[in-house]
Amino acid sequence: TTKTATQVFAPHEHVNQKPTPIKIKRIGKHEVNVEMTAQVTDIEIAKDDTYKAWTFNGEAPGPVIVVNQGDKINFTLKNMDPAIPHSMDMHAVHTAPSKNFADVMPDKTGKFSYPANNPGVFMYHCGTKPVLEHIANGMHGMIIVKPTTGYPTDSQVDREYVVIQNEWYKYNDMDDMTNGKPKYVVFSTKALKDGQLNTNGTVSALVDHPLLAKVGDKVRFYVLNVGPNEVSSFHVVGTTFDDVYMDGNPYNHLKGMQTVLLPASGGAVVEFTVTEEGSYPIVTHQFNDATKGANGVLKVTKD
Amino acid sequence: TTKTATQVFAPHEHVNQKPTPIKIKRIGKHEVNVEMTAQVTDIEIAKDDTYKAWTFNGEAPGPVIVVNQGDKINFTLKNMDPAIPHSMDMHAVHTAPSKNFADVMPDKTGKFSYPANNPGVFMYHCGTKPVLEHIANGMHGMIIVKPTTGYPTDSQVDREYVVIQNEWYKYNDMDDMTNGKPKYVVFSTKALKDGQLNTNGTVSALVDHPLLAKVGDKVRFYVLNVGPNEVSSFHVVGTTFDDVYMDGNPYNHLKGMQTVLLPASGGAVVEFTVTEEGSYPIVTHQFNDATKGANGVLKVTKD
Amino acid sequence: TTKTATQVFAPHEHVNQKPTPIKIKRIGKHEVNVEMTAQVTDIEIAKDDTYKAWTFNGEAPGPVIVVNQGDKINFTLKNMDPAIPHSMDMHAVHTAPSKNFADVMPDKTGKFSYPANNPGVFMYHCGTKPVLEHIANGMHGMIIVKPTTGYPTDSQVDREYVVIQNEWYKYNDMDDMTNGKPKYVVFSTKALKDGQLNTNGTVSALVDHPLLAKVGDKVRFYVLNVGPNEVSSFHVVGTTFDDVYMDGNPYNHLKGMQTVLLPASGGAVVEFTVTEEGSYPIVTHQFNDATKGANGVLKVTKD
Ligand SMILES: [Cu+2]
Ligand SMILES: [Cu+2]
Ligand SMILES: [Cu+2]
Ligand SMILES: [Cu+2]
Ligand SMILES: [Cu+2]
Ligand SMILES: [Cu+2]
Ligand code: NA
Ligand code: NA
Ligand code: NA
Ligand code: NA
Ligand code: NA
Ligand code: NA
Ligand SMILES: [Zn+2]
Ligand SMILES: [Zn+2]
Ligand SMILES: [Zn+2]
Ligand SMILES: [Zn+2]
Ligand SMILES: [Zn+2]
Ligand SMILES: [Zn+2]
Ligand SMILES: [Zn+2]
Ligand SMILES: [Zn+2]
Ligand SMILES: [Zn+2]
Repeated sequence: TTKTATQVFAPHEHVNQKPTPIKIKRIGKHEVNVEMTAQVTDIEIAKDDTYKAWTFNGEAPGPVIVVNQGDKINFTLKNMDPAIPHSMDMHAVHTAPSKNFADVMPDKTGKFSYPANNPGVFMYHCGTKPVLEHIANGMHGMIIVKPTTGYPTDSQVDREYVVIQNEWYKYNDMDDMTNGKPKYVVFSTKALKDGQLNTNGTVSALVDHPLLAKVGDKVRFYVLNVGPNEVSSFHVVGTTFDDVYMDGNPYNHLKGMQTVLLPASGGAVVEFTVTEEGSYPIVTHQFNDATKGANGVLKVTKD
Repeated sequence: TTKTATQVFAPHEHVNQKPTPIKIKRIGKHEVNVEMTAQVTDIEIAKDDTYKAWTFNGEAPGPVIVVNQGDKINFTLKNMDPAIPHSMDMHAVHTAPSKNFADVMPDKTGKFSYPANNPGVFMYHCGTKPVLEHIANGMHGMIIVKPTTGYPTDSQVDREYVVIQNEWYKYNDMDDMTNGKPKYVVFSTKALKDGQLNTNGTVSALVDHPLLAKVGDKVRFYVLNVGPNEVSSFHVVGTTFDDVYMDGNPYNHLKGMQTVLLPASGGAVVEFTVTEEGSYPIVTHQFNDATKGANGVLKVTKD
Repeated sequence: TTKTATQVFAPHEHVNQKPTPIKIKRIGKHEVNVEMTAQVTDIEIAKDDTYKAWTFNGEAPGPVIVVNQGDKINFTLKNMDPAIPHSMDMHAVHTAPSKNFADVMPDKTGKFSYPANNPGVFMYHCGTKPVLEHIANGMHGMIIVKPTTGYPTDSQVDREYVVIQNEWYKYNDMDDMTNGKPKYVVFSTKALKDGQLNTNGTVSALVDHPLLAKVGDKVRFYVLNVGPNEVSSFHVVGTTFDDVYMDGNPYNHLKGMQTVLLPASGGAVVEFTVTEEGSYPIVTHQFNDATKGANGVLKVTKD
C-alpha cells in the first residue's frame, strides 16, 4: 500500500471535507455527550506543503476534549470518509476495544459509551487497521480528564496550554512510516477556551504564533506525544519544569525536571515559572526531530 | 561477521538442539539452585520463518526464573553450543561480572553464585562479546525477584502473566543489528505455573494464543523489554495501568499510566482492571514496532 | 551545509586552539563567576580519529561546572572561534533565552547572569542555530547544582564520578545528524576534584582508563545524556542502582533500578554498591549504541 508523495489514495482524490466542529455537551453531573467526525481534509503540514489528512473533525491533531474524572462519555463517531472505516480509541477510558473502539463504516455513525475513571492527559486516536497508517495520516489528539482532587499546584497556575507532538511522513508512505523516517516532527496547540490559539500540526505553527505569558507566571502545559513512532524529550529553554505529573496523574509527581521523556502515546502536566521577558523556545531535545520542525516559542512579556 | 539471511554461521550449520528444561530447585529457605543450558535451537520467529537461535534452554526468550528477595542463587550454565562461548549476566544480582558472568567454553559447565538482593522484574542475558549479537540472536529472558514485603496491591490481583518484548534481525546480521533495523519486534509470554502458556518470541504468538481474563479481574503483567536496541512504549488498549511499579520495585509506584516507557533492559509490574468482555490488544505504541509484530491480545470473558 | 568527512569547514581549516582552562570563582556566599571559552580544538574521538570539534574550553564534553542551589551565576563566554557565533544555554537556570543565552560573535565576549534555583544534574550546550550542529560538533557538558538539603543518601556515598554520554557523527555532516546515524556513541568522565580523571568523549576512554572503587563502596555517578539525538538506557553490569534521583533532584527518588532511561538532555544521580573485586562494565543497554563505543569500566579492588 505504498504511495509516492504525488499519488493520492484513489478514493480520496477529490475529497477535501470542510472541518466539522466537535460537539461536547454536558447532560448530567457525571455524563457528557461527545460527537466527532472522521473526515478527509487538506492540512497544511508545512509552508506550501499540504497533506490530504485523515482527521477527526478536519483537524490534525483533532480537537482537545476535556471531561471530569468519573464522567460517563457517550461518544458518537460520524464517518464522513467515503471510502474506508475509522474508529475511536480513547486511552482515558475503561472498555472492551472490540466493542467500543469498533470500526465505523463509510457514511455510517457509531455510538459508544464508557467511563473516564482515571485523571490525566491521554491520547485518543483512530484504531482501525493498519493503526500505524491511520495515526500517521492524522487521526490523533488529546483528551484531558480533570482530576476530582485537582492538582496540588492548581492555585499557583496562571495560564495553561495544550502542546502536542506528532510526526508526518511522506504522503501515506507505509515504508517510511514503518522504517521510522519522519519528514516532519511538529508541535501544535489546541484551544482550551474560546478564542485561544488552535493550530494543526504544522511546521512553525508555534513559532509564527507563539504561546503567550507574563513575567512571573506559572505556566502549565498539558503535553502529549502522539507519535506514532518517536519518543519525545520535551523541554522548554530558559526554565525547568518545577512540577511534573506523568500522564497527568496527580500521584505521579516529579520536581525540577529539565526534560520530560514521553513515550509514544505518553502525556504529562508540566509547570514552570517564567521570570524574565523574552522568547523561550519549546523543543524536543532530540534535536534531529527539533530540526524537522518540533519547535515553538513561548513569548513572555512584562506585566 | 555479517551473514546473509541464508548463510548459516558455519559451526552451527547442522545444529538444532532439542530444548533442555531449566532446573530450579530450592535447597534452603534463602538458597536456590538454577541450572540452565546455552544451546543452538531452531525457533519459529514468524509463520514459515525459522531462526537458528542462540538460546537459553532452547527457548527465546529463555524460561522465566522466579526467586525470592534475599535468595542466594547457585547458578550452573552448561554450554552445549559446539562452537562458541556463552555466559549469563543477571541484572537481579550483585556480583563482579568479570568473575561471575564469565564465559563458559563449548561443552563446558560453569558454576556461579550470587545474591538477589533487590526485588523486581529483571533481564538476564548472555554477556559474551559481541553482546549485541548474543542478545539479538536470542539469549535473553526474565528473572523475577519477589519482594519480601510484597506489593501493596497483591491482594487485589486476580491473575498474572509474563510479557516480554524482543527484536529479531536478519539472521546474524551485525549490520542490521548495529543500524537498529529490526525485521520483527515481538511479544512472548512465559509460564509462571505448570500448564500456563509459554511461547517463544514469535510474531502473532499472543494473537493466536491470547492471554485470558475474566470480567472484573485485576490483571498483573510482569513486563520486560530486552531489546537489544529499541525502547518500548508498552500499552494495553481499553484500559489504563492503575498501578505501575517501575523495574518491579514496590517503592517505584506510579498510578493511572496509559503507557509505560521501558528502556532497553527495563522492566515493570503493571496492573489494570478489565471491565467488559472482549478483546484487549497489547502493543508497543511505537506503532512501527507494533506493525513489525509487537502486538498481542488479552481475551476477557464473562465470569 | 553538508560536508564530507574530509572537507573541513573552511574557516576552521587551520584552526586548532589550545584548550583554555575554565575559571570558576566563588565571589559571595550565593554568587559565582564562571568564565568559559568557545573554541575550535582537535579532539580524539576514537583511536586515530580526530575531529575538529566546536568546544567549550577545548574539551568535548566541556568541563563540569559545580554550583550550589540558590547561587547566582555570573557567566562570561569568550568566543575564540574566528568564524561563527556561539552561545551558552544552561538547563540549570531560569532566565530569558533571548537575552541570556544570546549569540556571542567571533572574537567577542558576552556576559550574562542568572540564578540556579533547582538542584540537579543538568545539561549545558551551545544554543546557536542550527543547534543540532553545534551540539553534535561538541558543544555540550554538565552543570551540577548541589541541593541545599543534600541527598538523603549523602552520608553513605564513598566516591563519586561524572559520566556523560554523547554521540559523534561524520564530520559536520548534517544529513547523518538529522537522520540520526551516529558514527560513535561514547562515554566520558569529568574531574570533580583536582587530579581526578578528565576525558573527552573518546571511544574506549573509560575502558582504557577505568573508574575506580573499593569493595563495599557505595558509588555515585552524576550521569547525563547530552545526545543530541539518542536516548540512553544507562546500566552498570553486576549491580543495580539502589538509589536513583531523576535529573538529580532529591525529590525524584527511585529504588532498585536495573537501568535508567535518560532522554536527550536528561540527567540522574545513580548510586550502587559494589560487593566484589573485579570489572563492572558501564553501558547503554541499547546495545547498538554500546557497540558504537558507549561502554566503560568500573574497576573494583580490595580494600
Ligand atoms: Cu481511521
Ligand atoms: Cu537545551
Ligand atoms: Cu552467548
Ligand atoms: Cu492507543
Ligand atoms: Cu556553538
Ligand atoms: Cu545487561
Ligand atoms: Na502564579
Ligand atoms: Na531549559
Ligand atoms: Na480483583
Ligand atoms: Na488503552
Ligand atoms: Na558506604
Ligand atoms: Na547490572
Ligand atoms: Zn486510524
Ligand atoms: Zn499561521
Ligand atoms: Zn523553577
Ligand atoms: Zn550473549
Ligand atoms: Zn501457535
Ligand atoms: Zn483503571
Ligand atoms: Zn551550539
Ligand atoms: Zn588514554
Ligand atoms: Zn544494591
